[in-house]
Amino acid sequence: MALNFPIKRSRATKVVNKANLGMDFEQIINESNEYYLNNDIAVIHKKPTPVQIVKVDYPMRTKAVITEAYYKTPSTTDYNGIYKGKYIDFEAKENHNKTAFPLANIHPHQIEHLRKIIAHGGIGFMIFYWVPYNECYILEFDNIIKYWDNKDDGGRKSIPYKEFKEFGHLVKEGYAPRLNYLKVVDEIYF
Amino acid sequence: MALNFPIKRSRATKVVNKANLGMDFEQIINESNEYYLNNDIAVIHKKPTPVQIVKVDYPMRTKAVITEAYYKTPSTTDYNGIYKGKYIDFEAKENHNKTAFPLANIHPHQIEHLRKIIAHGGIGFMIFYWVPYNECYILEFDNIIKYWDNKDDGGRKSIPYKEFKEFGHLVKEGYAPRLNYLKVVDEIYF
Repeated sequence: MALNFPIKRSRATKVVNKANLGMDFEQIINESNEYYLNNDIAVIHKKPTPVQIVKVDYPMRTKAVITEAYYKTPSTTDYNGIYKGKYIDFEAKENHNKTAFPLANIHPHQIEHLRKIIAHGGIGFMIFYWVPYNECYILEFDNIIKYWDNKDDGGRKSIPYKEFKEFGHLVKEGYAPRLNYLKVVDEIYF
Repeated sequence: MALNFPIKRSRATKVVNKANLGMDFEQIINESNEYYLNNDIAVIHKKPTPVQIVKVDYPMRTKAVITEAYYKTPSTTDYNGIYKGKYIDFEAKENHNKTAFPLANIHPHQIEHLRKIIAHGGIGFMIFYWVPYNECYILEFDNIIKYWDNKDDGGRKSIPYKEFKEFGHLVKEGYAPRLNYLKVVDEIYF
């Protein structure tokens, strides 16, 4: 049931690489999307990280070097595209916590974006990688929003692990693609 | 019939601002998308410019400053989203030439991306702003591809203005939104 992410292969680098787990999860999703693209299954891309460019130099005239820029808060989710003729949109999150996923790790505009996508007839969800358990889940928007909408009314500030175990959809590891999340999307949305 | 883009308002800056016309065209599309979003008509966003980040400094610990980065070639088009439950995807191009749009201004992967989008059931096109005529056209993918696919077989290296006049779909200026291109999308695709 567990995902054999590459970081697990080398126990020695486990702690050192902690900051890279998210990157690896992202990398695995990107590789899976490449597989889907090359096999004509879906066209899903990661959006580039939004950056505010302030200063650009041209040391060689032909090549522009950005010398001052800042990270911007993204206004949408990480991934979108088309699958089986439908618009698909999701955000990927990793969680290092053992008992719950903190809602503070979700940007309000990501929720608002997914809410709009679903209202317009698209498929929208979040995919979570639980680092301590080496498990990956798709959580439907309804299961996220029931915590999100209550967090400012005295509700809890996180989504408990049991919500994932009970209502989440486990994405198992595969070979090609490594993370066949569209198989799970099929079960939920088609 | 012509678009009163803001750059036309000040003739004195016409030449100076030539490099900014594209930005203004982009800005007008972005504003129109904001209108569509706020009025629950469509959810369409511009993708961030892809940047390869090489070096990041933390002069204040809390704030990251990117001090070395490079522009990357985009692997998809500029815009995508959902409209009337359908996936929509397009690239915006401006043209300063009077007689034709040079195909060299289109990246091969943008063509490949649109080709895939259409094969998967999405709406895909390009929207052109002809600076010399102050006109904006949507050109359907078929009208682009018939030039694109012949350019390496002795065909012409550009799409002539008459193709736009004859087969393109003129997008007229409006007030809200400034560029109501989805009205034209309705006529073509719905």
